[in-house]
Amino acid sequence: MDKAQAELVEPYGLEKVGAVVAGGARRQDSVAAGLKALPREASVVVVHDGVRPFVTAEMVSAVVGGAEEVGAAVTAVSAADTIKRVDGGVVVETLKRDGLFCVQTPQAFSRGVLAEALERAEAEGVVGTDEAALVERLGRPVRVVPGSRYNLKVTTPEDWALAEMVLRAEDDRRG
Amino acid sequence: MDKAQAELVEPYGLEKVGAVVAGGARRQDSVAAGLKALPREASVVVVHDGVRPFVTAEMVSAVVGGAEEVGAAVTAVSAADTIKRVDGGVVVETLKRDGLFCVQTPQAFSRGVLAEALERAEAEGVVGTDEAALVERLGRPVRVVPGSRYNLKVTTPEDWALAEMVLRAEDDRRG
Repeated sequence: MDKAQAELVEPYGLEKVGAVVAGGARRQDSVAAGLKALPREASVVVVHDGVRPFVTAEMVSAVVGGAEEVGAAVTAVSAADTIKRVDGGVVVETLKRDGLFCVQTPQAFSRGVLAEALERAEAEGVVGTDEAALVERLGRPVRVVPGSRYNLKVTTPEDWALAEMVLRAEDDRRG
Repeated sequence: MDKAQAELVEPYGLEKVGAVVAGGARRQDSVAAGLKALPREASVVVVHDGVRPFVTAEMVSAVVGGAEEVGAAVTAVSAADTIKRVDGGVVVETLKRDGLFCVQTPQAFSRGVLAEALERAEAEGVVGTDEAALVERLGRPVRVVPGSRYNLKVTTPEDWALAEMVLRAEDDRRG
């Protein structure tokens, strides 16, 4: 953590970083650790994947607005492709297409809602695909706000190449 | 159809185009019309979305090989995002993540399998998200072969901009 502070926060002058905390075994453990490190006055918590560099200020504002209004919000884009479930290289199910969305981050939560969702998941031994799923389990609403197809998750070499294309296009636009 | 012949097939010298046929009301109607126009000797049928310009020869070979072996094959990439079902701007369900794939085209079928799938769908009044779904209904296997994240569906202005980035990067690579 001191290393992150010394190699990232300080050299890049990231003045808004309040603390760098160690992650946990699962995504929700890392989020719980972050939640514990928040200052008392924080009322809305935004969770973002480090592998999504193309997040915009608009997305953050939209999820924060959603969290303030209904308690939780995620960014998403409608699923452009047909989604199927595959097992052993063979299709086992084609999902009904109505209302399918590809959910991204940022996701935002009112602090109390996120804390309750994480505690309940911990107590009941539930692992969520994302924190929003843990909130959904509580029967609470999760609003969907517009993400973007550019808001790529960069995890494979192919994603990296696509990310470079997006970056280059942004550079060109800026001149 | 004469217009397509005169404005596309001839000026671009597309010598492999056997016929241009009118589409139908639904995707499966268009595919059925194409199927009827095929020469008698065609044994494997490849279906491709006109809005996916980044198809590669490898993808076509892979789906054709799959169709020859098991009767049907689709290109797909694993779902990078969490998939949720949304209604009225609010999440109603988070899908279990195991084995979820985003299915693209090309999709390939042995001619008899596709004909049977389309006839059964017609007889039973079923509309499929894709032709593979109609084959799945028959209880027949549909193999999944690698597509690509570049194999974009270009339908929105945002898709168009992303497609331009991919094209520009390809041009740069070719020098």
